[in-house]
Amino acid sequence: MDRVAIIGASMTQFGQRDAWIRELLAEAGVAALSDAGVSPDEIEHLYVSNMASGEFEGQTGVPNALAHDLAAMPAYTARIDQTSSSGGAGVYAAWQSVASGASNMTMLVGGEKMTHRTTAEATDVIASLTHPVEYKHGVTLPSFAGLTARLYLDTYDAPRESLGKVAVKNHKNGLDNPHAQFRKEVDLETVLDSPIVADPLRLYDFCPITDGSAALVFCPESVAREYTDDYAVISGIGGATDTHVVHERADPTTMGGVVNSSEIAYEMADLGPEDIDVAELHDMFTILEFLQSEDLGFFEKGEGWKAVEEGVTDRDGELPINTSGGLKSKGHPLGASGVAQVYEIYKQLIGDAGDRQVDADVGLACNVGGFGNCVTTTIMESR
Amino acid sequence: MDRVAIIGASMTQFGQRDAWIRELLAEAGVAALSDAGVSPDEIEHLYVSNMASGEFEGQTGVPNALAHDLAAMPAYTARIDQTSSSGGAGVYAAWQSVASGASNMTMLVGGEKMTHRTTAEATDVIASLTHPVEYKHGVTLPSFAGLTARLYLDTYDAPRESLGKVAVKNHKNGLDNPHAQFRKEVDLETVLDSPIVADPLRLYDFCPITDGSAALVFCPESVAREYTDDYAVISGIGGATDTHVVHERADPTTMGGVVNSSEIAYEMADLGPEDIDVAELHDMFTILEFLQSEDLGFFEKGEGWKAVEEGVTDRDGELPINTSGGLKSKGHPLGASGVAQVYEIYKQLIGDAGDRQVDADVGLACNVGGFGNCVTTTIMESR
Repeated sequence: MDRVAIIGASMTQFGQRDAWIRELLAEAGVAALSDAGVSPDEIEHLYVSNMASGEFEGQTGVPNALAHDLAAMPAYTARIDQTSSSGGAGVYAAWQSVASGASNMTMLVGGEKMTHRTTAEATDVIASLTHPVEYKHGVTLPSFAGLTARLYLDTYDAPRESLGKVAVKNHKNGLDNPHAQFRKEVDLETVLDSPIVADPLRLYDFCPITDGSAALVFCPESVAREYTDDYAVISGIGGATDTHVVHERADPTTMGGVVNSSEIAYEMADLGPEDIDVAELHDMFTILEFLQSEDLGFFEKGEGWKAVEEGVTDRDGELPINTSGGLKSKGHPLGASGVAQVYEIYKQLIGDAGDRQVDADVGLACNVGGFGNCVTTTIMESR
Repeated sequence: MDRVAIIGASMTQFGQRDAWIRELLAEAGVAALSDAGVSPDEIEHLYVSNMASGEFEGQTGVPNALAHDLAAMPAYTARIDQTSSSGGAGVYAAWQSVASGASNMTMLVGGEKMTHRTTAEATDVIASLTHPVEYKHGVTLPSFAGLTARLYLDTYDAPRESLGKVAVKNHKNGLDNPHAQFRKEVDLETVLDSPIVADPLRLYDFCPITDGSAALVFCPESVAREYTDDYAVISGIGGATDTHVVHERADPTTMGGVVNSSEIAYEMADLGPEDIDVAELHDMFTILEFLQSEDLGFFEKGEGWKAVEEGVTDRDGELPINTSGGLKSKGHPLGASGVAQVYEIYKQLIGDAGDRQVDADVGLACNVGGFGNCVTTTIMESR
């Protein structure tokens, strides 16, 4: 079977941007077309990963506007929303469009414009994804993170410091990412002394509110070869849900969506966790990096924290995680994040990751919606 | 190639419903599973077509909630939004999920909850899909319809009455649709004397604001045979955009998205307009039925109105259009409409359309987003 290749990618500066969603999407779209050497009229399908342009900005129909702005008309367009994993869902949609034969050239642009709203307003829009009863009780996603972190530390006898070290590592990686929102190192003391948000988690355990976008160009591998030698292929991809209501989970320290989506992806790729050379995980909260690294099979349950303590997931470690800086330092513009994860893996696999470059032939991106409510896992290989 | 089959379908009562979006989606989902004889744990992918649950109801993450309500977890879920053509975009996504091999059993549920908001509020949410400049000038979709209707009548020397006859025909068809919002005949005088909305169009030229949902179950044809002899196949499907800004169109009486999406669908099906036995068109406004019937190639440009005058598109005519009652009498819950169109064609093709039954082996559904900004066309055949 002709595999699905990625032949071009881009991401904008993440952070506080003086641009509306439409402008952010167009900025990444134009850059990805240029990177791929593809002209707009070659695009057959154009997908937009975005959670809430209507709620944030009062603007819907954004995919159609983007087709105009990129001069990609009459390309088919649609918006893919899976809350904070809209980007990963967009990657899956783009993969399906090519693998089904519906499109020979698909562009995905993910983006979100959030910082013009207050943090409380933005958190409220995000919290609209939770069950109405959770919402009424004030259990927003940061609250779940606090509760789960406490449970994890108690259950697996992990030190509070290990969570802080995730933030320290990812900030250090973000220093070398020119697109990251925060390009500054933080030390463990700063993390541990930062204002408390949801005990035991503090400010530096959380990703910021961010504007930004990222884009990818997909086509069959047979077509990719006509454009470039520098492409990567998606060899496995899968998605899965966990309970909509978090308290229904037998063990909240296990993310069922991560387990199930990665099983599908590993089987499709005919690979296992031991084959992964580099990974981008959804560190919206530091605790999530532990949970995902375990549920993806990288480490035994309850041992993810040890890997961080021992430097295994550092950029020069055995399995670098979040070389991009992760959501923690790069920022988390909801619809863009899953796309930017795949951007990072793509750059690592084609050897174009600059100062962040690691030695990798196989990479994995795991994008989490809600508190693990829906997850997509993508495995990519250098050609 | 293994074609994509539809093995089950449902739609809820359309109209003013005392139920939230989550309940509406679950109602159609449960009914479609039952209709298909498929158990929830067989569902691999679950798509939700919905434009604006966040804007209408403050609730996002609806696909994940639906996976819970249907006991379909860990099925992968995502929301597909293409404004008023979200349903058609969902059909395309579901088709791709099966055709790509990603899923062997996909459910699509489309729905919208709108009537708890005033007509002005609902129209405002819909108008958020237009260009900000169009929006500022008050050119909402009904305004475009009035302007285009005037142009059509003038250009093609069509009588005002011909538009009214679309409403009369579709209301007559809706009388036999137990799910329709309006089950009452209207005569031409009533239409022509109803309050003016956007000259020359009057109240009865417009579809209503509606709550409702519809669902479909898709699988490979090889799998379909294990479940039922009563299935239909999707033999052609395509999508395309037209300009985001309506005034940029060289001829506003031609819907480029309809032309381009149907060309893709006809080519995939290896069929032409002359092969279509029954069609569901997006008669959000009466004028749109003329435009689509021409741009799909059923009739020459400027002659669509004659077909209605001559009864060609009546239920007992040569090419019945909108046997369901169309959006006009059935109602238009945005995310549900494109799904309900395919529901009607499916029912016609398997011979289960009750009093609305016509003689048909090949059917077509055309779902329009915005004022033709994005369109999907689906061609289906009896097995």
